[in-house]
Amino acid sequence: MADFKAGKLSESDAAKLISDAQTMDLGHTKIDRSRRGRTGVGEVVYGAGKTPRQILEIMGAIVSEGSPVLATRLNADAMEMLKAEFPQGRANEIARAFSVGSENREKSGGFVAIVSAGTSEMPVAEEAKATLEFLGVRAECFYDCGVAGLHRLLEKIERIRQAEVVIAVAGMEGALASVVAGLVKEPVIAVPTSVGYGANFGGLAALLSMMNSCANGVSVVNIDNGFGAAYNAYLIAGKSRL
Amino acid sequence: MADFKAGKLSESDAAKLISDAQTMDLGHTKIDRSRRGRTGVGEVVYGAGKTPRQILEIMGAIVSEGSPVLATRLNADAMEMLKAEFPQGRANEIARAFSVGSENREKSGGFVAIVSAGTSEMPVAEEAKATLEFLGVRAECFYDCGVAGLHRLLEKIERIRQAEVVIAVAGMEGALASVVAGLVKEPVIAVPTSVGYGANFGGLAALLSMMNSCANGVSVVNIDNGFGAAYNAYLIAGKSRL
Amino acid sequence: MADFKAGKLSESDAAKLISDAQTMDLGHTKIDRSRRGRTGVGEVVYGAGKTPRQILEIMGAIVSEGSPVLATRLNADAMEMLKAEFPQGRANEIARAFSVGSENREKSGGFVAIVSAGTSEMPVAEEAKATLEFLGVRAECFYDCGVAGLHRLLEKIERIRQAEVVIAVAGMEGALASVVAGLVKEPVIAVPTSVGYGANFGGLAALLSMMNSCANGVSVVNIDNGFGAAYNAYLIAGKSRL
Amino acid sequence: MADFKAGKLSESDAAKLISDAQTMDLGHTKIDRSRRGRTGVGEVVYGAGKTPRQILEIMGAIVSEGSPVLATRLNADAMEMLKAEFPQGRANEIARAFSVGSENREKSGGFVAIVSAGTSEMPVAEEAKATLEFLGVRAECFYDCGVAGLHRLLEKIERIRQAEVVIAVAGMEGALASVVAGLVKEPVIAVPTSVGYGANFGGLAALLSMMNSCANGVSVVNIDNGFGAAYNAYLIAGKSRL
Amino acid sequence: MADFKAGKLSESDAAKLISDAQTMDLGHTKIDRSRRGRTGVGEVVYGAGKTPRQILEIMGAIVSEGSPVLATRLNADAMEMLKAEFPQGRANEIARAFSVGSENREKSGGFVAIVSAGTSEMPVAEEAKATLEFLGVRAECFYDCGVAGLHRLLEKIERIRQAEVVIAVAGMEGALASVVAGLVKEPVIAVPTSVGYGANFGGLAALLSMMNSCANGVSVVNIDNGFGAAYNAYLIAGKSRL
Amino acid sequence: MADFKAGKLSESDAAKLISDAQTMDLGHTKIDRSRRGRTGVGEVVYGAGKTPRQILEIMGAIVSEGSPVLATRLNADAMEMLKAEFPQGRANEIARAFSVGSENREKSGGFVAIVSAGTSEMPVAEEAKATLEFLGVRAECFYDCGVAGLHRLLEKIERIRQAEVVIAVAGMEGALASVVAGLVKEPVIAVPTSVGYGANFGGLAALLSMMNSCANGVSVVNIDNGFGAAYNAYLIAGKSRL
Amino acid sequence: MADFKAGKLSESDAAKLISDAQTMDLGHTKIDRSRRGRTGVGEVVYGAGKTPRQILEIMGAIVSEGSPVLATRLNADAMEMLKAEFPQGRANEIARAFSVGSENREKSGGFVAIVSAGTSEMPVAEEAKATLEFLGVRAECFYDCGVAGLHRLLEKIERIRQAEVVIAVAGMEGALASVVAGLVKEPVIAVPTSVGYGANFGGLAALLSMMNSCANGVSVVNIDNGFGAAYNAYLIAGKSRL
Amino acid sequence: MADFKAGKLSESDAAKLISDAQTMDLGHTKIDRSRRGRTGVGEVVYGAGKTPRQILEIMGAIVSEGSPVLATRLNADAMEMLKAEFPQGRANEIARAFSVGSENREKSGGFVAIVSAGTSEMPVAEEAKATLEFLGVRAECFYDCGVAGLHRLLEKIERIRQAEVVIAVAGMEGALASVVAGLVKEPVIAVPTSVGYGANFGGLAALLSMMNSCANGVSVVNIDNGFGAAYNAYLIAGKSRL
Repeated sequence: MADFKAGKLSESDAAKLISDAQTMDLGHTKIDRSRRGRTGVGEVVYGAGKTPRQILEIMGAIVSEGSPVLATRLNADAMEMLKAEFPQGRANEIARAFSVGSENREKSGGFVAIVSAGTSEMPVAEEAKATLEFLGVRAECFYDCGVAGLHRLLEKIERIRQAEVVIAVAGMEGALASVVAGLVKEPVIAVPTSVGYGANFGGLAALLSMMNSCANGVSVVNIDNGFGAAYNAYLIAGKSRL
Repeated sequence: MADFKAGKLSESDAAKLISDAQTMDLGHTKIDRSRRGRTGVGEVVYGAGKTPRQILEIMGAIVSEGSPVLATRLNADAMEMLKAEFPQGRANEIARAFSVGSENREKSGGFVAIVSAGTSEMPVAEEAKATLEFLGVRAECFYDCGVAGLHRLLEKIERIRQAEVVIAVAGMEGALASVVAGLVKEPVIAVPTSVGYGANFGGLAALLSMMNSCANGVSVVNIDNGFGAAYNAYLIAGKSRL
Repeated sequence: MADFKAGKLSESDAAKLISDAQTMDLGHTKIDRSRRGRTGVGEVVYGAGKTPRQILEIMGAIVSEGSPVLATRLNADAMEMLKAEFPQGRANEIARAFSVGSENREKSGGFVAIVSAGTSEMPVAEEAKATLEFLGVRAECFYDCGVAGLHRLLEKIERIRQAEVVIAVAGMEGALASVVAGLVKEPVIAVPTSVGYGANFGGLAALLSMMNSCANGVSVVNIDNGFGAAYNAYLIAGKSRL
Repeated sequence: MADFKAGKLSESDAAKLISDAQTMDLGHTKIDRSRRGRTGVGEVVYGAGKTPRQILEIMGAIVSEGSPVLATRLNADAMEMLKAEFPQGRANEIARAFSVGSENREKSGGFVAIVSAGTSEMPVAEEAKATLEFLGVRAECFYDCGVAGLHRLLEKIERIRQAEVVIAVAGMEGALASVVAGLVKEPVIAVPTSVGYGANFGGLAALLSMMNSCANGVSVVNIDNGFGAAYNAYLIAGKSRL
Repeated sequence: MADFKAGKLSESDAAKLISDAQTMDLGHTKIDRSRRGRTGVGEVVYGAGKTPRQILEIMGAIVSEGSPVLATRLNADAMEMLKAEFPQGRANEIARAFSVGSENREKSGGFVAIVSAGTSEMPVAEEAKATLEFLGVRAECFYDCGVAGLHRLLEKIERIRQAEVVIAVAGMEGALASVVAGLVKEPVIAVPTSVGYGANFGGLAALLSMMNSCANGVSVVNIDNGFGAAYNAYLIAGKSRL
Repeated sequence: MADFKAGKLSESDAAKLISDAQTMDLGHTKIDRSRRGRTGVGEVVYGAGKTPRQILEIMGAIVSEGSPVLATRLNADAMEMLKAEFPQGRANEIARAFSVGSENREKSGGFVAIVSAGTSEMPVAEEAKATLEFLGVRAECFYDCGVAGLHRLLEKIERIRQAEVVIAVAGMEGALASVVAGLVKEPVIAVPTSVGYGANFGGLAALLSMMNSCANGVSVVNIDNGFGAAYNAYLIAGKSRL
Repeated sequence: MADFKAGKLSESDAAKLISDAQTMDLGHTKIDRSRRGRTGVGEVVYGAGKTPRQILEIMGAIVSEGSPVLATRLNADAMEMLKAEFPQGRANEIARAFSVGSENREKSGGFVAIVSAGTSEMPVAEEAKATLEFLGVRAECFYDCGVAGLHRLLEKIERIRQAEVVIAVAGMEGALASVVAGLVKEPVIAVPTSVGYGANFGGLAALLSMMNSCANGVSVVNIDNGFGAAYNAYLIAGKSRL
Repeated sequence: MADFKAGKLSESDAAKLISDAQTMDLGHTKIDRSRRGRTGVGEVVYGAGKTPRQILEIMGAIVSEGSPVLATRLNADAMEMLKAEFPQGRANEIARAFSVGSENREKSGGFVAIVSAGTSEMPVAEEAKATLEFLGVRAECFYDCGVAGLHRLLEKIERIRQAEVVIAVAGMEGALASVVAGLVKEPVIAVPTSVGYGANFGGLAALLSMMNSCANGVSVVNIDNGFGAAYNAYLIAGKSRL
């Protein structure tokens, strides 16, 4: 500790003592066993760029420890393998997500509203839903709320206003986030999607639109990041339950 | 004409015969005297980058021929000089526009609706209004229609629907264009503005947003181009009057 | 209504009464049955990202109600399935569009001119044509009008000038929109296309070019958006017929 | 109401009944008098682009109604005028913000942590602080936490962890948001700033960095938008107090 | 002609008289038969996006008229079909170009130098070479001249200096254009290529580099546009021969 | 020389022998005295970022050696100082250029055509003209040729076709370059200008437009680079005179 | 030499004498035989865009001369062919790199630390490692150091501080480079990777982040350029050994 | 420590013990007194955005502790105040840098070469020089080495090759970095500058160019970051002296 005070900055020695045996090594991946204790949430496996076999091994290792686990961005092969291997799991085909178990949070009556324009945004919206369910938070999806047909959103707005947090998922011009935020008093997490073509530039149009929202109460996550929006909503929604 | 047919492409000789005496040369500027006969609309002077003195000379030359003329993007000095020189003219201080005379179009009962969020977009919206008035088309401005407070737009929507064309002027995320287009059956000309900061990138956010509108019936002009939107609206509105 | 006045904003309750039974739910898609009454135009199915089977189901549901329907951005499989299923339909192979029925608008003698440089822009130009035909508006295509060989455009300009609206479809540098707008008195809807390579950046070059047109009367829709240009043209052309 | 059901969409008539006398018109600005009832928060005046005189008039009108009001992005002249006119007001010189009164929220023991690297980000961080104080939420600033000297952040992390929400303000590479989010369990609102030069491109580098955070629990607002981050934090922090 | 003078602009009528029978219509393509008379150069078929069958038909039609023709950007199938169909043709496998016949320009002793770094730029450099040969201009390629090994360029510079025009083909940072232009007195046509990865952004890095060349005498064509560079070189080189 | 062959690359020793006394050192600037012998063209002073005093010293030093010299991008102060100091010099006020003497090239009857839309592009077009005159090449300017009024260009096209090279100067959408190149057989050097606003992005729109020209024979120099275009034209035009 | 002094710049003649027989020509590739003598490092074959057969021939030619050689960016087929052909070689499957022999540098006790977040960056980090090993420099990889879990980096920091140079490999927001550079005294070479999605824009987010690092001692190489980082580290590390 | 192990992550408590009294608080700035002990280098004051008075106070506080200090990016007023206040200091007027004292590193015979094209890059190159001198490393500047006149670089290359590290400072197309790196065996730190106009986009062209260098051994720092390049060079050069 004297050396440390002397400015040599050896936080590492202290830290090393702590983290022994906190990771499990599968060769291709090291699993962070302390994350759940640290953050209250278990591992989430980002499936893109991993082989079905690797995903299976990672999930098997976590499940074998009795921990809940969620995987996102799975391709069709991985989905099939996981469904076969973990019959007790829950698959969300549209989201391409699969979970085994879930965090046992105490349920309040509250819920998170996921609002989007429709068919094309469904994979992202459902990723948010699957994530919230894994995290023990109830989610309700409000599809078919594109701003080009405002009456469809207005029909549902009373229910949306009862949510603890709102997730607005929108591609193309991303106007939904501003419109929703102008109609509710709760925080709005905006998810731009890559849905669109041409001057949409892979979601950039919706991203910039949401960053510049004229409505108060909007914050933004990465393009297509349904998981990230759900995680933020979970953190926020949790506050009402303490 | 034989040479011409032989593929030597001398359209120029023919054209030269026609356009004699069609331009007036002021040294710094050549005025296109045939434009009004050709397009039905006189010269419009784009004031940015010209000295007050140059603007005065151009407008004086046109007025002295008995033609109507509009100038836009004027700075304060140019505005003062023009007001002193042409007491019969009409100044729009917010738009920084000045006109002498106007096209004598036969008035129908129709009008163009100019919809915007408010204070910051007013210079662009008023440029559209001043242009339409110069072109002999009636314009009504609907300010305070930002999508963050949707009820303000909905209050006015019945009247907006009676317009022949709608111009939607919006900065920041530009969502107004989509929302308005979803509520009316008329064509919507969208004008992105450079109002905003940060990730607005000088109007790029609103521009991309409007290009990607999920609503049908939206077309877009350049950032801050109130004049251009008005010119398009004038062309379209004219159709109901033929 | 008292609560509503008190500022609690329950437009939704009112709206909910209205829209009962306005949508038909196919599982993957909700069909907006009130759109045609609301906007005068039936559903248009955007085929990209949908399976042939989904497209077939959507179109079948709409046709079974006796409504006209148009589908765009179809792949070869979807085209084949639709042609087999709806022998009464109309296929535009170049546009990859298919329609059953059309809006029964009263025909005027007028038409919309679709001008483009040629082969590469044909799919976009034909999408505009198929859309206009579905909407009951006559369209004439003027191919082979690239600005690099101006005489080809000049040959056809007399006929183009007789159109009610002009759609200019151009990739590469998009100069066609400015040149055409300088030669006609009607509104020009410009469609940048993604045709090109290198510094074309997926249509960005043509898009920026068209946004900055030095000619009056040009407004722009999204890259490759033949449908959107046609929809705008339909709205504008309709004005001459009232 | 029958017409309404028939799909003619006249929400506007209903809405018009409600909003009578909800705005106060100052000529240059319409003040939304119903906003506070609607959202629980009074008007916030965005000072950029307004003259000191306009700002003074707007604030005077609101104060004369007995409502609290906050102004941001004030230049030196506006600050001086407001301090002279409203001696009871509160000025934050670094933030260039000025408020009269504040929302009387019931205070909890909680607070929002505002974390940043130091001197250059102070105007944005202080804008967040001034906003939170206006909204009745306690804020603590943790300056000098740049990631280049991690020990400075680690010294303060215990206190930061006690916050209800964390606002991370960072220019240059924006890494602070990820590092902080990895160390706390609360939601992190990230504010990219335009501090930097060269390849920072006016804050774009920090913005993209924060959008791509590898840490969970981060959402992002516009570049330099201290106000927006504070508003989000206020909405979230409020949840612990219900 | 009176109408024409009156400003009705009917250049088209005149032009129509001329261009009768100047195009040959293959259904998918209209061939411009007058181009060669007009510009001295026959049709060049841009193969990208056309089927091998379409390319074959176009070339067959031109060849059957006794005109020379060049096709570029051919895929392997098209190359095979053309070689089988036109045994008298000339194939450049690296350039993916194929020509039948060539312009019979009077040969001078001069040549165009094509300079590039090596293997990766060869397809673009060879497209330039095949084009020049088709146009009747002699071309010499100087590969292996990357600026990272300056001695390789310096070895060849005496010969390069004897060229009438220099084409510099370079990907990555595109520095070759500046270095070459600093060493020769002739005009340098720079061709950025899309060779590279990461921050090369599809050739943008080389394009911007070449546009900003500190050396005099450099002008730039589109990314990978070997054909365009050759066409410019042909126009310039021709001047020495008049 | 043995070491050199051994791969140690000491070109520098050889080069050092040669270049002795080839530069003149003014403290702030080193003047390259051998450039004229090497390239046939004397020094050109780029005035932007230099003080009037520095420019005066540089030009004085060159003139005192009896060499011709050109300065571009001069501000008003520098222009005045130079006119006073060198009464024998030639000033181009629009171009903000000043020259003393010129290269004594043997005059042919040929000329370079500089084509542009008009007033706004004049500074760039005149910079090209001043440069060509300094280089001993005759230049003719064709203003008022914007593509929005095609007849103005067609009137002049016969004369433009007689030029040895064409320089096309255009801001906004830059379409002029394509249109001109489609009408002439000579090489076209395109100069995008920063004239415009909004989605013009400082000349980027015109630059991309010109890079993607659908017409053959166009190459492009940097935005506003009238000097560079002229230098290229000078190199090309020279070929007809050998 | 007299001509040379006279300014005709014939460095090439001199250079030509030197470089005779320095390249070996394989048809598709010229191998630079003098590079190793010149720079101390043999050829490195960039495998992307080359066929397995071409790679095999190049490596065979170099090996047959007794020189060491490294190939990077190999696809699976090329890896298999090389392993079969050169059983004495060393394959790094994750890096997709293969080497035969290595530079025989005198080993010091020193090493280069390669730090990264984990699984996704492994191919780039391993490319750096394979390169360093080929160059005769010892490398240690420190995976699982993402800034979202700072304790993992702090555990290893003592060892990382003992390195001569640090390579920081990071995708997403690239914060790792700044954090590491704040903790060590050695130079940090930062490698942005294309790992991520959405607003990551192919590695641009990490690249800009690293360019704007608030920590001293960071320099940056191209996206995914593990080879380049290693080469720089090799040059720097070499200094401690002289 | 038990709590710490339990995953509550209180590194902060440990750290707090250490850093007591390590900062000096001037109100506007906190000075990091431990930095010099920690990194071997004292504070460097970034002058941009600070008032002359603030800079004076910061430097006074550091000097009064007997530590050396460097300030960069100073405006004229700050330079004057510092020269008056610290007559013992060293001013570099071109770099706009000022230092009092310097690090007493043991001098080797080695030096860092700073290579640039000339006048315009001098402020950045001199910032690098002033920084190196402050850090106790000898620097030599090689101006007038633009790649457009290669002989000027080749003349000096023998001396540049003797440096321990090379800093290449270049604006416009940034080609200098690649050319230099191809001629030396030492590491090259490339500094893009914002010198240029048009498609240079504030230094982006040079930045991308340098990131894509075809030469080995180049790493890049931020645009105009002479200080950063020097700091890296100092870290690398130090290695030869251990």
